[in-house]
Amino acid sequence: MSDKKLLRVLAGETMPHPPIWLMRQAGRYLPEYRKVRAEAGSFLDLCYNPKLAVEVTLQPIRRFGFDAAILFSDILVVPHGLGQDVWFVENEGPKLAPIRDVAGLKALGLSGMTARLVPVYQAVSDLAAALPREVTLIGFSGAPWTVATYMVEGGSSRDFAQIKGWGFADPAGFGSLTDLLTEAIAQHLCAQIEAGAQVVQLFDSWAGVLPDTAFRRWIIEPTRKVVALVRKRYPDIPIIGFPRGAGLYYPEYAAETGVTAVSLDTTVPTGWAAGSLQGMLPVQGNLDPMLLLQGGQAMVDGVAHILKDLGSGPFVFNLGHGIIKETPPEHVEHLVRMVRGDIEE
Amino acid sequence: MSDKKLLRVLAGETMPHPPIWLMRQAGRYLPEYRKVRAEAGSFLDLCYNPKLAVEVTLQPIRRFGFDAAILFSDILVVPHGLGQDVWFVENEGPKLAPIRDVAGLKALGLSGMTARLVPVYQAVSDLAAALPREVTLIGFSGAPWTVATYMVEGGSSRDFAQIKGWGFADPAGFGSLTDLLTEAIAQHLCAQIEAGAQVVQLFDSWAGVLPDTAFRRWIIEPTRKVVALVRKRYPDIPIIGFPRGAGLYYPEYAAETGVTAVSLDTTVPTGWAAGSLQGMLPVQGNLDPMLLLQGGQAMVDGVAHILKDLGSGPFVFNLGHGIIKETPPEHVEHLVRMVRGDIEE
Repeated sequence: MSDKKLLRVLAGETMPHPPIWLMRQAGRYLPEYRKVRAEAGSFLDLCYNPKLAVEVTLQPIRRFGFDAAILFSDILVVPHGLGQDVWFVENEGPKLAPIRDVAGLKALGLSGMTARLVPVYQAVSDLAAALPREVTLIGFSGAPWTVATYMVEGGSSRDFAQIKGWGFADPAGFGSLTDLLTEAIAQHLCAQIEAGAQVVQLFDSWAGVLPDTAFRRWIIEPTRKVVALVRKRYPDIPIIGFPRGAGLYYPEYAAETGVTAVSLDTTVPTGWAAGSLQGMLPVQGNLDPMLLLQGGQAMVDGVAHILKDLGSGPFVFNLGHGIIKETPPEHVEHLVRMVRGDIEE
Repeated sequence: MSDKKLLRVLAGETMPHPPIWLMRQAGRYLPEYRKVRAEAGSFLDLCYNPKLAVEVTLQPIRRFGFDAAILFSDILVVPHGLGQDVWFVENEGPKLAPIRDVAGLKALGLSGMTARLVPVYQAVSDLAAALPREVTLIGFSGAPWTVATYMVEGGSSRDFAQIKGWGFADPAGFGSLTDLLTEAIAQHLCAQIEAGAQVVQLFDSWAGVLPDTAFRRWIIEPTRKVVALVRKRYPDIPIIGFPRGAGLYYPEYAAETGVTAVSLDTTVPTGWAAGSLQGMLPVQGNLDPMLLLQGGQAMVDGVAHILKDLGSGPFVFNLGHGIIKETPPEHVEHLVRMVRGDIEE
């Protein structure tokens, strides 16, 4: 029997107190992170500095004793590794030199990616050596659709006009980008597993903007292929899928992509998930990060509601989206103690 | 039997070719709208000018012969009518002097609202007289939650931090705002019906951001109350609910709010809606506005997919979200002919 609670739940076990980790747990809400971040140069410099990436990954483990550490990195290391220009503008987010047609794909290539991402895999390997034995190390990648949105839009988007325009007008050409990303993402996940990641998570942050035929073509299918490619090399690796905003597609995503577990966003009704998903696979989620920011009775009620609905099946406690940078660390401490059953509310 | 196809479908009839209208059909994609808009002064000046509001409402009816005309107005006339400062900044959207606590509510009042909104009701009444007999006149309002987001955030939001902060920390105080809006919105809809609106639609554009207990408290419950208040005065008025992004809550929304029909956003799988919603009530939707912008084969395929899934039950063709301002009017013409069965694809 593993010492790692997360692995046991992902293998189907129900724990009296679920394992807990938080999306973006290594991040700006922690003063010790902000200190390292200020010294690191650019955001990508931090991602590519194994010593500092390991340090910030470990910070929330030391402070809160989470059951899992997720590699500090970014989903945009994949396009960067493929050769696309990627940079971060403070308070604006990521910027990319956009690729909007098949001709633009010529500048990208898989061959140099692993070499460029060596510092990332070094960090994974150092983390695997450094973590306490009961803590699971999670590697991750963006999913093909979500990574493509940044590559085509040139950053964040509200309407996804460029990527939908390309995809609807030229499905074959856009399919080439999806195919390239499918290969690249599988390779990136395999390299992390090779380096010591014990679980991987696929973040599909923009899964909630597509009509149904497009959802199947650009989300379900590429995710299924990534999972199959990774499993060909690592048949037993647990893979958590997080199709944020997938709403009515959650059942199809859970049934057809081959993921080991699904992570639920904030809007998924937990009672529904208990009845419709948790019988099929373990689920993870889904406290509203605004409730963690708020703390107090609202948070306590929200946590109790989730534990009541999902706690009697295989379940990993998490947020429904990344932690908000203004969150007081004491609220996180309170949350962890509550999920662990160390305090009664 | 009514001449109005929309009313017949909302009464449960299945038509060989569904009625069609488009959200924001009176708007910036039409050159004749842009001309009026340029002459009107501010956006709110246009909303409060019955002659011009009637003119822009009629423009898409003349051009495309839609089955319904929706009053040209804005969901923010309700907070404006209640006494909140509202203004529009070109290319930025609406701005409001935000209300973030119970003390802020003191500046608002129901008593003056109807008097302030007289020009809106005048436009409805003029439209009712001007429209061809086969065209249904739709009045509308924002739903309490969505209107509240603008009132509390002070405009559009990406994270809804202010409204969630208030609602989670002080549910009773925030409940006073919801209660006030429930009354105001019911009154606003009744005044439009009184003036001649034959159908009303409730827009809940930001229904997709709440965890489940909050969805029930701030969306299902207030919507149910608005519907009940309107039905007390107008028992037979058809009410279309549009909880955009409601995802897994669509069934609960459809079953519990009392709306006559639900409008589906772009992400709702039409095959699922045919099986799970259309047996309960008529549905409306849900072409991705990006497909209409795109036109050509992608649009044709998207329309055919929707008609195949939803055309054999009570169904109103619409978009899944408002029309995009860059949409070529010829694409709209093509869409209307296709839905009417005037062209085979």
